[in-house]
This record gives sequence, structure tokens and C-alpha cells, in this order.
Amino acid sequence: MNATPPDGVGADRPASPVLQRKITIGDVAARAGVSKSAVSFVFNGRSGVGEEARERILEAARALEWRPDARARALSRSRAQALGLVIRRAPELLSTDPFFPQFVAGVESFLSTVGYALVLQVVDGEEAEREAYSRFAHEARVDGVFLTDLRVEDERPAELAGLGMPCVLLGSGTGEGTAPIGLDDAAGIRRAVRHLHALGHERIAHVSGSDRYVHSRVRREAWASELAQLGLRPGTVVEADFTGAAGARATHELLDDPEPPTAIIYANDIMAIAGISAAIDRGVRVPHDLSIIGFDDIPLAPYIIPPLTTVRQDVFQWGNACARALVSIVEGNEPGAIELPPVEFIVRGSTGPVRGQGEAIIEAAG
Amino acid sequence: MNATPPDGVGADRPASPVLQRKITIGDVAARAGVSKSAVSFVFNGRSGVGEEARERILEAARALEWRPDARARALSRSRAQALGLVIRRAPELLSTDPFFPQFVAGVESFLSTVGYALVLQVVDGEEAEREAYSRFAHEARVDGVFLTDLRVEDERPAELAGLGMPCVLLGSGTGEGTAPIGLDDAAGIRRAVRHLHALGHERIAHVSGSDRYVHSRVRREAWASELAQLGLRPGTVVEADFTGAAGARATHELLDDPEPPTAIIYANDIMAIAGISAAIDRGVRVPHDLSIIGFDDIPLAPYIIPPLTTVRQDVFQWGNACARALVSIVEGNEPGAIELPPVEFIVRGSTGPVRGQGEAIIEAAG
Repeated sequence: MNATPPDGVGADRPASPVLQRKITIGDVAARAGVSKSAVSFVFNGRSGVGEEARERILEAARALEWRPDARARALSRSRAQALGLVIRRAPELLSTDPFFPQFVAGVESFLSTVGYALVLQVVDGEEAEREAYSRFAHEARVDGVFLTDLRVEDERPAELAGLGMPCVLLGSGTGEGTAPIGLDDAAGIRRAVRHLHALGHERIAHVSGSDRYVHSRVRREAWASELAQLGLRPGTVVEADFTGAAGARATHELLDDPEPPTAIIYANDIMAIAGISAAIDRGVRVPHDLSIIGFDDIPLAPYIIPPLTTVRQDVFQWGNACARALVSIVEGNEPGAIELPPVEFIVRGSTGPVRGQGEAIIEAAG
Repeated sequence: MNATPPDGVGADRPASPVLQRKITIGDVAARAGVSKSAVSFVFNGRSGVGEEARERILEAARALEWRPDARARALSRSRAQALGLVIRRAPELLSTDPFFPQFVAGVESFLSTVGYALVLQVVDGEEAEREAYSRFAHEARVDGVFLTDLRVEDERPAELAGLGMPCVLLGSGTGEGTAPIGLDDAAGIRRAVRHLHALGHERIAHVSGSDRYVHSRVRREAWASELAQLGLRPGTVVEADFTGAAGARATHELLDDPEPPTAIIYANDIMAIAGISAAIDRGVRVPHDLSIIGFDDIPLAPYIIPPLTTVRQDVFQWGNACARALVSIVEGNEPGAIELPPVEFIVRGSTGPVRGQGEAIIEAAG
């Protein structure tokens, strides 16, 4: 307590933490109403910040008497200014997958404002995937990576930590280690189950994605727990792989049951659309005999006949939020609170009231 | 002719050009049965070539007494070892576009064998696009770029030349300046017109993509010229923008005509599927009253009801070929002959015989 108070602040006046601590880049950013990356950009002479924001930043720095120190600047300049995304998919699946193009577009919507590039690698197996990450790290091509399709007992987070590579996990909110950033898939599925229950359905089946993905499990568990919550019997689940062919196969399997479901919730729209087609092929009317719900709300969903009831995710905003978080981490800042839009439930023509026992008998008699 | 023949070849024996010219990296690659990039990789100490191929390359180089010269090696090492792809699309369109994910997967299928990365930039306007290319060039992030969606009077090839940035154009074979690499869209459309003609259709309309794209024009011109070729009257064309909403609107416009078409060829599957939905909504049966043909063969096409007749492009192979050509150009080699698979015409349930005048009268009377 004998130290001379800085800046001539009297010892009798309560010390103001704001006045005492060192001015940081965060203070400049806050005062200018911009991100720390934007401030860093202006002081590193890079493009990507608009003229007006640039003026505000320079003025805020002047007012706070802040200057970036040379070491920090050098550190910043040694970055690759790029983030990496490794996509592990069979090419056939890639072209139907609504996730990646939207996610990439969302990531870019942020990266383009801070001058980062996205380096993409498409791989078709585990070995190639591991190699891709290791090459990213060793060639210093990227400063951080997005980790998608979190798997059950996934080794990649630990491997990336071993490579010293910052990462953002995309997931459905299961908290092991680093918290993943994800939309609330489970809420969408629970909403779908409640919709069917309200329409009188009691035999509600599920066609899931591969059980090795966390997001497949999250969706399946939400379906099962919501059935239990509503006091319904456990439903039948068939595991598929997100392709149309697998969706059709799973649908036939469910409809071959002596006591087939009156409604099916699919883990994605592609499988649901193939499911409608499979049902109609065997004379099962949708939604008259069978209600069908998808997941994703792909842009074709309204144009299917009947139009598809589904869960909509705002993957574009998700990509934007993940990019924002990863740039913060890479630049040594604390990622701010991440706000993601809630999933929406979109009711269209592929779901309807369950056909009563009585009605079936009348029809058979008529 | 007074020069001493090399290698003790007698002057009376016809000079063999194979023996006289300098051994190049191409000879080593040919002898080892690998690409020149693979040879360059091994001699630059980079990973990405399998052990067996590596052995063959080293043995071929020994046998031919070839060594890379230091200058070439330095040049090679100064490369970014990355290629750039700027995608200009509204995010909404990106997620339905079957082209980019497949193209990217195809590009990667080659790049991953030679250790190049793909740097991606998604932009939503012309200014952002220009900036992306300029940043690629100035920051030396990439060694070359793919230029997609060639536009009518496109300034980008000249701008890229101005930036000294090698590029490969993706196009439908219109030869202005650098020859674009492309699939034969026109052949697919001509095939579609002949299919409808054989089924008795005479009023065949077209829903095109935006007229500013070369590929939209190529498809439209193929449709118009094939109609003329077959002696049919010119058909009606409605310009749309590749989205489902625009496809539905265009379909309604065509069906509102006092003399509506009996068949419509769409510039992509998304618009065709929305067209089926629009037709059925207004009581027009597909294919009974109206035959519909798409373009792309998206993986959902077989699961639409009725399943969609369409033109299939192998975009994956296209991406692979473009990547191969661009790496060759970047490494200062002559790109070899490019062989692309022909487009295929896939007949499914959305096309059928035209309904005769007589049949309509009988039905009306019945």
C-alpha cells in the first residue's frame, strides 16, 4: 500500500480498477464498438475493415493512448490468417448434404470481414483425416480448425491438442472438455414428437443417422425420451446413414412390421423424402396412412409432394458464430458469449391426424 | 550437323530425338507411371506420395540419371502449394446447389494426392469477388485459381492475367482466350429434346437459368437449335434463377398460356422438382398432362414423385480434371489432354407420351 498511486490518483480515493489496469486492445475495441480482430487489423495495416470503423478505431486508440506492442504485432503477423475445415464424407453424400455448403457460407460471412481465408480439405477416411490435420499443423497453413461431426469417443480433440492446434468443436451441447458450439437438435426432435402426439399418433418410429456420431445419438435420445415423457410405448428405431437409399430401406423395414408405425421421424430431410417415395410406392398414403417428419428444412422441402414437415436449423448463423469464436481463440482473446438462433419446427403437408381404427373399418367395409 | 552426336550414337544412324533431348521430370514421371507432381514431391522432400510410388520414382530417376536442378526446386518451394476457389452465390442458393460440393470433392480427390490445399472464399457480390481474387494474388495465398460460372463478357480472365494469377476456366466449351474445361451441357439438352420429340411432344418449353451465365446460354441455345433441327416450332423460354421458387413461378407462367407446353425442360433439377409441384398443385398431372425434365441428377431425383427424368453430369470427375490441369499450369508444365466423361441422359417417370387431342375429348365426354 506504499506504492505511489499511478496517474496522481490520491491514496484516499478508492482505487478505480478501470484507471489502474493497463489499457488493452479490448478497451479500444469496446470504445470503438468493434471486435478486437478489427482493431488488430487496422494496426497491422491489413484490409478488411471499413473506412468508418477504421476511423472510430484510430480515434478510440488515440483517446485511450493505446498502441499495440511490437511483439504482439509480430506474433499476429506470423499467423497464417487462415482457418481449416476437414470434411470427411463420401463424395456422393457431400452433394446432398445441406450442412456443409451453408456452414461454409456462414463461416465465410465472418472470415471475409476479418481477412481470414478458409482452407478446405475433403477426405474419405479416418487415416486421410488424421493426415490432413497433421499437415495443417506442420505446414502452418492454418491457425485453427473447425471440428465437425463429433463422434462418440472422438480422439480428434486430444490429437489436435497434441498438435497445438486451436479448435472449435461443432456439436449438440454435450460437454466433454471444450464445450462444443451447436444448435439444439434435441429441442427440434422433441417438438416433432409432441406435434405427432397432438395429432393422435402413438406408434412413432425413428430413422436415425449412424450411431457413431454424437448428433445422431442426441436426436435419437430426444425422440426416445420425449415418447417416454408423453407416456407412449417405446418406438422402433432403424439406423441408417443419411442417404436417400438408406432412408428408403429403413422405411420399408418399418412398414413391413405387422404393427407398423403411423408416423416416422427421420434424422434428415433426404431420408424423409426417400421415405415418402418408398411409402407411396407400396400404396401407403402420406399423410393419410403415415405421417413423415424430416430434419434440416432443405430448400426442396416445400416442393416435395406432400410438402415436408421438418425441423429447420440456421446453419449459416451457426457457421458465422463458430468462425467468430475460432478467430477469437486464435488471436488469444476470450470468445464472447455465443448466441445461436433456436431451431424451428415447420409444419407442412406430410403430417396429419392419425387415421382411427374405426375409420379403417368403415373404409374396408365400403 | 557437325556437332558430335551424344552418347556415341553414330552419325550414319538416324538421330533419335528421344536420345538427344534433355531428360525431364516428365520422363521420370512417365517411367515411374506417376504424375510430374508426384516426382516433384519426392524430390522436394514433401509428404503425400505413397512408399511404393516413391520407390518407383527414385528408381526411375536413377535409371535416367535425372536430378532436379536447384533453381527449379527453389521455385517450387516458394509456392503456396494451394489453389483458390471463389464461389459467388447467395447462401440460400449455395445449399441447394449440387455443383459446388461435388466439384470441391473432385478437386480434393486430386489435390490430396499432391499435397496441395484448397482455399475457399464465398462471396455474395461482384465487388467482394474482385477483392477476393486480388487478396489471393497479393497475399500469395494461392498459386492459381479456378474460375467458375463464366459470364457473358466476363472480365475476370483479363483481371487475373493482370494479377499474374494462373487460372483454369470452367465452362461449356466456348473458346475465347484460354479454352475452358467443361462438360458438354449442350449434348445433354439436345438428347432431352429428342426424347420428348420421340414421345410425340411438339410444344416443348424451357425454363433457363440467368442469361448472364455462359452455361445458361449454352443450354438455352441447344434447346432452341434442336427444336429447329427437328422441324418443330420455336418454343417458349422463361428465364429463372435456378431456385425452386423461380422454377415454380416460371412453371405457372408457362401453364397460364392459352396454348401451354406439353413438356418443359428445366436448366436444373431444383427448378424441375418445384415445377412438378407447381403443376400438380393446379391439377396438371405429371407426366400424363405434362412431361418434365431436369438437369444435374441430384441424389434426390429418383425419390421425387414421379421420379425425375434428367441429364447427369459427373461433376466429381470434372473437379478432378480441373485440379489436375491447374496444378500442371502452376508447376510450369503443359496440362495433358483432358478427358471428361460424357453427360448421360437418365429417363425416369416424369416424362411420357404426349396426350393426344382425341384422348382429351374422350376423357371430357366420359
